[in-house]
Amino acid sequence: MVKARATIADIAAEVGVSVPTVSKVLNGRADVAEATRIRVEQALSRHEYRKPVSSRPTGSRASAPRLLDLVFHEGDNLWAQEIINGVERISGPERVGVVLSGLGGQHRPPQEWIDDVMARRPLGVLLVLSGLDATQRHQLHSRAIPFVVLDTQGNPPTDVPTVGSNNWNGGFVATQHLIGLGHRRIGVIMGPSDVLCSRARVDGFRSAHDDAGLPFDPALVRWGEFTPGSGFHHAREMLAGPARPTAIFAGSDDVAIGIARAAREHGLRIPEDLSVVGYDNLPITEWMSPPLTTVNQPLREMGSLAAQMLLTLAEGRTPSSTRVDLMTELVVRDSTAPPATV
Amino acid sequence: MVKARATIADIAAEVGVSVPTVSKVLNGRADVAEATRIRVEQALSRHEYRKPVSSRPTGSRASAPRLLDLVFHEGDNLWAQEIINGVERISGPERVGVVLSGLGGQHRPPQEWIDDVMARRPLGVLLVLSGLDATQRHQLHSRAIPFVVLDTQGNPPTDVPTVGSNNWNGGFVATQHLIGLGHRRIGVIMGPSDVLCSRARVDGFRSAHDDAGLPFDPALVRWGEFTPGSGFHHAREMLAGPARPTAIFAGSDDVAIGIARAAREHGLRIPEDLSVVGYDNLPITEWMSPPLTTVNQPLREMGSLAAQMLLTLAEGRTPSSTRVDLMTELVVRDSTAPPATV
Repeated sequence: MVKARATIADIAAEVGVSVPTVSKVLNGRADVAEATRIRVEQALSRHEYRKPVSSRPTGSRASAPRLLDLVFHEGDNLWAQEIINGVERISGPERVGVVLSGLGGQHRPPQEWIDDVMARRPLGVLLVLSGLDATQRHQLHSRAIPFVVLDTQGNPPTDVPTVGSNNWNGGFVATQHLIGLGHRRIGVIMGPSDVLCSRARVDGFRSAHDDAGLPFDPALVRWGEFTPGSGFHHAREMLAGPARPTAIFAGSDDVAIGIARAAREHGLRIPEDLSVVGYDNLPITEWMSPPLTTVNQPLREMGSLAAQMLLTLAEGRTPSSTRVDLMTELVVRDSTAPPATV
Repeated sequence: MVKARATIADIAAEVGVSVPTVSKVLNGRADVAEATRIRVEQALSRHEYRKPVSSRPTGSRASAPRLLDLVFHEGDNLWAQEIINGVERISGPERVGVVLSGLGGQHRPPQEWIDDVMARRPLGVLLVLSGLDATQRHQLHSRAIPFVVLDTQGNPPTDVPTVGSNNWNGGFVATQHLIGLGHRRIGVIMGPSDVLCSRARVDGFRSAHDDAGLPFDPALVRWGEFTPGSGFHHAREMLAGPARPTAIFAGSDDVAIGIARAAREHGLRIPEDLSVVGYDNLPITEWMSPPLTTVNQPLREMGSLAAQMLLTLAEGRTPSSTRVDLMTELVVRDSTAPPATV
């Protein structure tokens, strides 16, 4: 016999509190004693309580404000801006307000952030390069607040909707392009090694070497941050010796900007003395001197798709697909050329 | 005799509707007939009705979500990102959610945006490079929703709180630096001529010439957009002839990036053949090749100060000052040098 879903009344009876008290906890209200709140949360979790979706406002001028929470593990770069623009392309016409949060480099939001989200009851939550632990997932689930992970940092459970892009392919086509130009000594300066997209891009770099029957020098594979400073630091070292690479694959466009500055300090011209491939295809790259060859990661499309998925889930409908990777492709500009010494 | 402030009951009696109906209009609810809504709005405006501040939630875990609306006339650049970071430095610790809106290049929000703001009842509204008309100002005022204008596009009424920076001084010190290096033929590629900050920067450019007893060539003063594309387009033209300038003052760092690319196309090296000064001091400028000499506009501080001002107003208190310009200063890096032909 299938057990019927627990109602708020069932939860209240079990914990020994009133129905309005359970309701207050569900709505993130402050006027509930902490001990009571914890007991109610535990009962909600035990019963896998989920608020009926139909009880939530979805009309375009309903009294509750229509909000969507957008969370970045770090927000201060052009990469984040592209995703925001993609989200706004969907939320704007739908008159949904986008609430922005930055986690200051953390990959998991603090509990007080979850409390605030439960209090403002958004239509959904979009997490960029960050995830939720099981308790946090359940807390949103019990409030019928759907969430989608964009460009996942780790490997979330299969029931978590995700939008990403084909990072392995990006690393592969970038490296294949350099090998095709005749480069045999290629460096890579990547983001953090504990972020899945970094590892996939470096695996693509390796596979392109294997595919061409070429070895690669492990000393030329560097892990760092997705920042100009990290690109500068690693490139300055890598370009110092006589065994320097003739080309570098950068883990992001920001990293490529740092590499360009290190090349300049070493008196190396791009692309005559050093080829550089970036990653992301931020709008600024076409204005760089020289314009940057880079891997297009469709960040705006990823943001739009994730926002669309959230609004569909918020209406209680099921999106046609909930685990999507968009395709990456190489954009060839002027920062790559055959090596001088072929 | 001072006339007593109208109450909701007075407004309701005058219009001939119920008190809850007036309340619904004030709270941006949808379930009021349009004709009634207009009559209520007119009565509110006539009486300069203002909701008592004390009736609004300000506690850190009150039931209404604590939000702050942040509106950009255009949001897709690093400049906006700096302001967002400044706002979040204040809103984060206060656990206030930041709702982001872009106006797609318009300087005045559409009425439906105001309707949505009234429905979500934020603690306050921060308008960047945009303003409100008298009706919109009154609508927010009657709901006791304070607003602050950051880097005003026009000249708002004196009772509107504003945060800006000293644009005239920025134009003056940038130009003085170039004149001091020995440049006598200096171009300027600015943003739109109908934006106050553009005009103030160009006036500073002129005054620096006057101050040094030097003439300037009006043909070298160009108005455009604050974008790389605009910098590229104007610089390509300006650098084409034999009467080209030896230095260009860019209206923004984005404009400077476009100028650098045009210089490269003309085979001109920076700073050997052309000096360039940017404006804003975005984090990316120190990583440019060469690192950019630029005017520091304290965008983060401006964002923080405006957010702080809003939260103070939301508590019904008066900020110590409500018309503030922060100081700009020159940051000298490697994109400026004496002209080759002194």
